[in-house]
Amino acid sequence: MSDTTFKGWAGAKVEDPTTHLTLKEFTPKSFDPTDVDVAVRYCGICYTDIGSYQGEFGGIVEDRVCGHEVIGAVTRVGSDVKHLHVGDIVGIGAQTDSCGECEWCKSGQENLCSNNALTFAGQYIKGPSKGTPVYGGFANYWRGPAHFAVRVPDSLDPASSAPLLCGGVTVYAPLKRYGAGPGKKVGIIGIGGLGHMGILIAKAMGAEVTVLSRGQSKKDDALALGATHYIGTGEDLAADFKGHENSLDVIICTINPATLPIDQYISLLRPRGTIVLVGIVPAPLSLNTLPLIFKSVAVAGSVIGSPAQIAELFELIAAHPEAAPWVNKYRFEDMNKAMTDFNAGKAKYRLVVVNEENGGKL
Amino acid sequence: MSDTTFKGWAGAKVEDPTTHLTLKEFTPKSFDPTDVDVAVRYCGICYTDIGSYQGEFGGIVEDRVCGHEVIGAVTRVGSDVKHLHVGDIVGIGAQTDSCGECEWCKSGQENLCSNNALTFAGQYIKGPSKGTPVYGGFANYWRGPAHFAVRVPDSLDPASSAPLLCGGVTVYAPLKRYGAGPGKKVGIIGIGGLGHMGILIAKAMGAEVTVLSRGQSKKDDALALGATHYIGTGEDLAADFKGHENSLDVIICTINPATLPIDQYISLLRPRGTIVLVGIVPAPLSLNTLPLIFKSVAVAGSVIGSPAQIAELFELIAAHPEAAPWVNKYRFEDMNKAMTDFNAGKAKYRLVVVNEENGGKL
Repeated sequence: MSDTTFKGWAGAKVEDPTTHLTLKEFTPKSFDPTDVDVAVRYCGICYTDIGSYQGEFGGIVEDRVCGHEVIGAVTRVGSDVKHLHVGDIVGIGAQTDSCGECEWCKSGQENLCSNNALTFAGQYIKGPSKGTPVYGGFANYWRGPAHFAVRVPDSLDPASSAPLLCGGVTVYAPLKRYGAGPGKKVGIIGIGGLGHMGILIAKAMGAEVTVLSRGQSKKDDALALGATHYIGTGEDLAADFKGHENSLDVIICTINPATLPIDQYISLLRPRGTIVLVGIVPAPLSLNTLPLIFKSVAVAGSVIGSPAQIAELFELIAAHPEAAPWVNKYRFEDMNKAMTDFNAGKAKYRLVVVNEENGGKL
Repeated sequence: MSDTTFKGWAGAKVEDPTTHLTLKEFTPKSFDPTDVDVAVRYCGICYTDIGSYQGEFGGIVEDRVCGHEVIGAVTRVGSDVKHLHVGDIVGIGAQTDSCGECEWCKSGQENLCSNNALTFAGQYIKGPSKGTPVYGGFANYWRGPAHFAVRVPDSLDPASSAPLLCGGVTVYAPLKRYGAGPGKKVGIIGIGGLGHMGILIAKAMGAEVTVLSRGQSKKDDALALGATHYIGTGEDLAADFKGHENSLDVIICTINPATLPIDQYISLLRPRGTIVLVGIVPAPLSLNTLPLIFKSVAVAGSVIGSPAQIAELFELIAAHPEAAPWVNKYRFEDMNKAMTDFNAGKAKYRLVVVNEENGGKL
């Protein structure tokens, strides 16, 4: 396999990356004994890919190849790799490397390591390729540390598993941490890529789900995804939320508005509840301390998930196949069309590009 | 005991309550089968007493008697009361009644019940005295629901146990909830009544304690109370905190400034950490979401504690007598002087009034 030619959809600080990606050959990192090569079959599209192509995340932007919800078959296994074999179906998420030495890395919480290499924007942290760019999954092959390649259970549909690797685990991790499960009431703000997985996953965990989204257009989908209640929001949240105060144990906020009226959302929390933000809101939140204290509630953030959490999520979806993400598939060759449609909000609810030459199925 | 005359230090929306409290007879609630009478020996002074005398908490302010860190001996026991006997030493905290029916009351989390009667400002929630004022512990006797009277272990010093009933449990509850213990690093912001107990209690729980307080004047006390590190703060928190970033698992904020630069304090949190506010900050916090998300941290509030948590805290202090609050004692008759000194910041670190005629010892 040493003669594998790597080709990926590259962008370089272009203004509108969605129509300007170019399929180019690239030279991946050197193959180390801890690495695997993966023939990519599927890769989900996430908003951070767009931002990364536009240079938002810094690093080496020239000819960057993004894509960080990668599913494929292992084609080459480094001599130090114990947990993977040629032919295994694996997934790689938003993180490709970390220091490997800190308490977070050693306790299976690599996503909290401060030396993080993002799959869509990073540079390798350690080893012979330290400082060289990470190439993501909008490519025919992915090469990187086997530690960040998680085995996909045989019973899972690989195409619809791709979005679990970033968007899915981003909502799963806080749902787990803050106790979503039977008898708990979960609120999901927004129905996009992350929001729709939040509904599916919270429901699979046994929680009762309430969805909050603008207007009524997504109500039917929300209920079909597993929500029990739907709150359509408009210009007056206080009015929209009337009668729903103190009703939710955990709220996952998946939207990225310019500002967020956090106090209104806190009014929905039950005592000891938590509202978790998983997407950055540009303007600082204006947070009143009084309800925070009197209800003993919290405003939290949460960042992606670790390989161990991805594996947990795979097991959850394997046990609840109805909770697999809803995906629209595009041919790998139609990458620019996929990006354009994604940017136009046409995903219902996650776009996945399919590499048929590696065995991906449309 | 039915001829007990109740006398307490009453205030009525006076401008400066600290010099205007008057010792007056009052008529307590009717004695119900679920009640106890307690001959008050000690009562701590808390800032909310001042606010309550000034009318901040609403309710029936006329001839209000505050005091909600009450320690005394049971003198009369209602026929339905099983857990207390005449002669038992008990404590009553900030809460005197709740609905008794909701999930929070039924699960021993009465402090989260939305039908709360505060000892320093409330009206009874249920029973024959529903709607009548609660009288607190700046009195010779306290009468109320035995459910909110917690037995004080024999080995505890009763005088220094008084402050545990409100201030102590207010810091203990979030320390417990957010995992303070061996191997954890706790920050305590402020060294007043609550802050000094935060240091003592976190240390007793096995955590390593860092204290943050203005200037250097309280450094020696902080170390004597059990802190390992002291950060003296001035006008430039960013400079003060340099080198301390990402160092604390749990921060308890015991101060009530007009505004709080929450982002600066969040810089001190380690991944997965929590900063807990236990005192209201009048101005809304301006909270950046980026560090919240990237470190997976939380900003939380916490409100007092339940009788079960008070009992837990008593056991903790019984096992760690060195963690008993530091108190200055005043004669019950000198109530106005005690209030004046308290208001002047002379507490080091909690003032306790002593009722010698009931067996309290100066």
